[in-house]
Amino acid sequence: MWNEMISDAYEAIKDPGTEITVANLEKGPESIEQHYDVAWAELFTLRELERAEEERYDAVISYCFDDPALLAAKEKLRIPVVGIQEPSIHLASMLGRRFSIVSVGGEPGIGCARDEVGRYGLEGRLASVRVVNIPVLDIRKDREKLQSTMLAEARQAVDHDGADVIVLGCGGLLGLAAELQTELNVPVIDPGEVALKIAEDLVRLGLAQSKKAFPFPSPKMRRY
Amino acid sequence: MWNEMISDAYEAIKDPGTEITVANLEKGPESIEQHYDVAWAELFTLRELERAEEERYDAVISYCFDDPALLAAKEKLRIPVVGIQEPSIHLASMLGRRFSIVSVGGEPGIGCARDEVGRYGLEGRLASVRVVNIPVLDIRKDREKLQSTMLAEARQAVDHDGADVIVLGCGGLLGLAAELQTELNVPVIDPGEVALKIAEDLVRLGLAQSKKAFPFPSPKMRRY
Amino acid sequence: MWNEMISDAYEAIKDPGTEITVANLEKGPESIEQHYDVAWAELFTLRELERAEEERYDAVISYCFDDPALLAAKEKLRIPVVGIQEPSIHLASMLGRRFSIVSVGGEPGIGCARDEVGRYGLEGRLASVRVVNIPVLDIRKDREKLQSTMLAEARQAVDHDGADVIVLGCGGLLGLAAELQTELNVPVIDPGEVALKIAEDLVRLGLAQSKKAFPFPSPKMRRY
Amino acid sequence: MWNEMISDAYEAIKDPGTEITVANLEKGPESIEQHYDVAWAELFTLRELERAEEERYDAVISYCFDDPALLAAKEKLRIPVVGIQEPSIHLASMLGRRFSIVSVGGEPGIGCARDEVGRYGLEGRLASVRVVNIPVLDIRKDREKLQSTMLAEARQAVDHDGADVIVLGCGGLLGLAAELQTELNVPVIDPGEVALKIAEDLVRLGLAQSKKAFPFPSPKMRRY
Amino acid sequence: MWNEMISDAYEAIKDPGTEITVANLEKGPESIEQHYDVAWAELFTLRELERAEEERYDAVISYCFDDPALLAAKEKLRIPVVGIQEPSIHLASMLGRRFSIVSVGGEPGIGCARDEVGRYGLEGRLASVRVVNIPVLDIRKDREKLQSTMLAEARQAVDHDGADVIVLGCGGLLGLAAELQTELNVPVIDPGEVALKIAEDLVRLGLAQSKKAFPFPSPKMRRY
Amino acid sequence: MWNEMISDAYEAIKDPGTEITVANLEKGPESIEQHYDVAWAELFTLRELERAEEERYDAVISYCFDDPALLAAKEKLRIPVVGIQEPSIHLASMLGRRFSIVSVGGEPGIGCARDEVGRYGLEGRLASVRVVNIPVLDIRKDREKLQSTMLAEARQAVDHDGADVIVLGCGGLLGLAAELQTELNVPVIDPGEVALKIAEDLVRLGLAQSKKAFPFPSPKMRRY
Repeated sequence: MWNEMISDAYEAIKDPGTEITVANLEKGPESIEQHYDVAWAELFTLRELERAEEERYDAVISYCFDDPALLAAKEKLRIPVVGIQEPSIHLASMLGRRFSIVSVGGEPGIGCARDEVGRYGLEGRLASVRVVNIPVLDIRKDREKLQSTMLAEARQAVDHDGADVIVLGCGGLLGLAAELQTELNVPVIDPGEVALKIAEDLVRLGLAQSKKAFPFPSPKMRRY
Repeated sequence: MWNEMISDAYEAIKDPGTEITVANLEKGPESIEQHYDVAWAELFTLRELERAEEERYDAVISYCFDDPALLAAKEKLRIPVVGIQEPSIHLASMLGRRFSIVSVGGEPGIGCARDEVGRYGLEGRLASVRVVNIPVLDIRKDREKLQSTMLAEARQAVDHDGADVIVLGCGGLLGLAAELQTELNVPVIDPGEVALKIAEDLVRLGLAQSKKAFPFPSPKMRRY
Repeated sequence: MWNEMISDAYEAIKDPGTEITVANLEKGPESIEQHYDVAWAELFTLRELERAEEERYDAVISYCFDDPALLAAKEKLRIPVVGIQEPSIHLASMLGRRFSIVSVGGEPGIGCARDEVGRYGLEGRLASVRVVNIPVLDIRKDREKLQSTMLAEARQAVDHDGADVIVLGCGGLLGLAAELQTELNVPVIDPGEVALKIAEDLVRLGLAQSKKAFPFPSPKMRRY
Repeated sequence: MWNEMISDAYEAIKDPGTEITVANLEKGPESIEQHYDVAWAELFTLRELERAEEERYDAVISYCFDDPALLAAKEKLRIPVVGIQEPSIHLASMLGRRFSIVSVGGEPGIGCARDEVGRYGLEGRLASVRVVNIPVLDIRKDREKLQSTMLAEARQAVDHDGADVIVLGCGGLLGLAAELQTELNVPVIDPGEVALKIAEDLVRLGLAQSKKAFPFPSPKMRRY
Repeated sequence: MWNEMISDAYEAIKDPGTEITVANLEKGPESIEQHYDVAWAELFTLRELERAEEERYDAVISYCFDDPALLAAKEKLRIPVVGIQEPSIHLASMLGRRFSIVSVGGEPGIGCARDEVGRYGLEGRLASVRVVNIPVLDIRKDREKLQSTMLAEARQAVDHDGADVIVLGCGGLLGLAAELQTELNVPVIDPGEVALKIAEDLVRLGLAQSKKAFPFPSPKMRRY
Repeated sequence: MWNEMISDAYEAIKDPGTEITVANLEKGPESIEQHYDVAWAELFTLRELERAEEERYDAVISYCFDDPALLAAKEKLRIPVVGIQEPSIHLASMLGRRFSIVSVGGEPGIGCARDEVGRYGLEGRLASVRVVNIPVLDIRKDREKLQSTMLAEARQAVDHDGADVIVLGCGGLLGLAAELQTELNVPVIDPGEVALKIAEDLVRLGLAQSKKAFPFPSPKMRRY
């Protein structure tokens, strides 16, 4: 179901020549909403990202707003590794002065989102992180409620926190951005969609993460 | 000649459906190498950028590394307005920890480049600005010299300044990035190429600069 | 009328030996309220600033709170070039911990003012930018309304935004600072007045902008 | 062997009433030297940290300079969770103006160490990261070489990078700090030792990580 | 009375082997609540701190939240010199993301506290400074009022300012932290207690301020 | 002798109507070269600054590059209190991108100067602090040596540290700036001279430190 949602959304915006495969984690947490889940997902995500290079993909996306295993995979792989938060908040910084992240999953994820923005050095551009109390796994249960609560929080971000751009803080909100953008009259960025376009750009431009910045791991025994 | 160079380079990397027009300034300076030139180019650049929207283009690029008139055009226009420095240094920040700008035009342009990076809030990612003493207008006179001096400066940036990504600091260096990248073994970013891909991305994603951040100008008399 | 207002204000605070000439732009926008207007004013302002050195003035002021053409003129000229925002916010930083800019011109100018403060590296000292909905060109239409609305916004800045110093955000508000200061009990800085004193100081101290930081422009063809 | 080294060092500096157990990861990488290893170690470290609370320990240390699973465990646990890098660089910030991290493991670990310092918000205090080309697993092979190369790098940090405090960048360098400190005449901090004292302090003072900052994870299925 | 309060509190948390002497200033202000008082206390505090080394103490604490004479004593002495604010706000930074300082003494002390946090480079972690209108000298007059007003301000800091850790902003509030912590459900740090534990840690670890960072004063005539 | 030097220098640049009195500390250190000396000078400086207001002066300068008692006097007094470092480094920030402080007194003063720049929030503009090994008290012993060593250090600052403006780091170097400026071709700022002009400006503009930022001290017993 999730895979299909992503495939459909990607089909609609991808370059004509791009072929996309959606893969799932073998193990790990059901959903990723805070640091604890990231720690559970890290290794299994990494294994899938590595598989992409083994199977000759041109680029790979760590498809979760917490960008699990992103730095590790940038070290291990030659092909471009793209998170969904990192390119989204950079794009947001080009479109406005200050962005807010609006997401599902409730309060526990707020600090984690702030930490990530700081890791990318863009905390000065962050107006706020706002969340609705819908668990990630329930996103698709009540579309109307999702949309109305997300809109309400995003409006608060724009009216009270000084945001002039909204970044959706989860990869499972596909299809929501356009509606919110129409209502709010500020850009609303879907991070999963941005990740695809940036991955395609990198491939087209012959670019990938710097191996000076992200050196290959030394060989050693690693078990799991 | 410049137009052709840009058209050729863009033809090679553009999306199949993209149509590109290269327009020139009516007046202004022969080349833009520091703040003084930017001030001379600003208004004439702005007029051309505005014309793009009047003529129903989907997006427009201010094609110079100093991004002249970028903020002004973001205010005036609804269509995405893209600079060439802004998206390049954001992309560089995703590919490594610290980038250097390597450019032509000699020492007078160093401070101006630093000021621009600061304006985009990424000074913490800037390792250095390095230049070769070839005026912008002479770029195409001696290709070999251009390449060897640029390579030498870029190598200094990587070896001594701590850069792990290189951003070429001029829109007229098309074709140089790939060769330098092979020599240096770190990503070398051509800013003009990045600008095109980001402009295409924004159009595809239905995004543009925030009109809350860049409000439409009030009507008033403006003469030139 | 504007010229007279400035001349009168300057006459009252200038050093005895200072002679002042107020010059106007030949062309450009009627008033400068956001980035778009700055782009329109840049070249014409620059030409007037250059004329000051040609005519043997000892220093020149770019008299608008957006400091148009300031960096360009610092490059071109040997004599001190002074903006009105730059010295005012530095002075504000000496008198308190956090200043607010209070201005006319309405919402469109807020982002532009923020960008300028960032360009001068003092965003950490900025408590807020607040504006009243009076266009710059209407400043002199209703003095009472101007004063009461400016006072109300400045009071909000002090009481709610944490400002302990107020900087007036326009060069056309001469005569307002003293009254507001009496009401608010915090320093209220008139930027035009500060610019004059700093220009006089630089001349007296034999100082001007660093030509290492702002190198002379290379000779080239520039048309307008 | 490693366990014994740590136990011995801890025995010498612990509070009289403290009882210490050293536990090892079931699985994961042989050693942790960069982001890739951290991703491999994260989940297995987390499981051991959780076990400490289950077994009624008063505090627990994630004993590796990359502080694996630190944020995740701060979310999951009530007892104080202490890394070895985090308290060491805060202590270094109290003892001087700028510290350098000197470590083993070679170049691949430099970027990772920088990223961690940034995550703790102390990048402004970091003079440099310097490494010797001895893999973590070989630390105990040639003590003399270890000491002389570490001394040489630390001296460079003090003499050329502006460091006035040295932080050893690995938990396996116990016993080295005192000798280096005597030679260098600046404080040399052993991160493992600092972690123990800070853990004891927190227990004594009745303090632990804020559960507002690090909220308990939502219940959900997590498999490995 | 104050001495006794401190002695009692310290007795309860000190290491078994630690011996503590509380000394008072010969002269200076009755209490320290803002920069003006610090200037009055500086020299007399310094003389007492120096006496500690003369009398062979292993470490010395400048026991006031404004850390008077801390930098001067770090220069003059070899033994560890510890303030009470500096270690507390570093510890707060390890326990949460953003801390608030809650203190007595009324509004005049707010700016001074902010300045100190900035001096230690942790202004990015400061959520707010909040005060109650009880002079330092009246702290012990009405315990119940002290506690209820401090609790109210601390709650505001947590609920409205985004603090996830509270630091008490005065050395005379011993015994208050535990109660507030229970009420607020976030860590509440007593700065005097932290200072003692950090001083003990430094002695145990053989560490003290860097003499490269804090060089010994040149001999010269100094009179008072 | 010092008084005369300052009086002469001030006579040459003051406004015609300004009357100047140079006062000396009753007690304290012979010279101020690092934090330790500042702590010794603080109270005696404060007393003299307070006397200026009692004796109806319009403004007062704390004449030492470490700005002793500046914040305390800003709290106590209504008249403008001006340091010599604070206005100089703000002026330097207007004239270039990065300034170096070049001073006498040797290495012990470097850290102290850095701390002050940080206190004023301008550390991002500081290229370096460089010193010559001449004690403050020996400044006037060998003028030629003073000048040649200062020139050598200032040249290093410009050529190697990236400074484009030099700030002299001591109030006793009057007469040196002009010569150095001629040699170096970048602005060289004498801090004592700047302080006078800024003090005069504030008086003329009816401005002084914000009493919201620097509130009056509470009445209490203070002895010395």
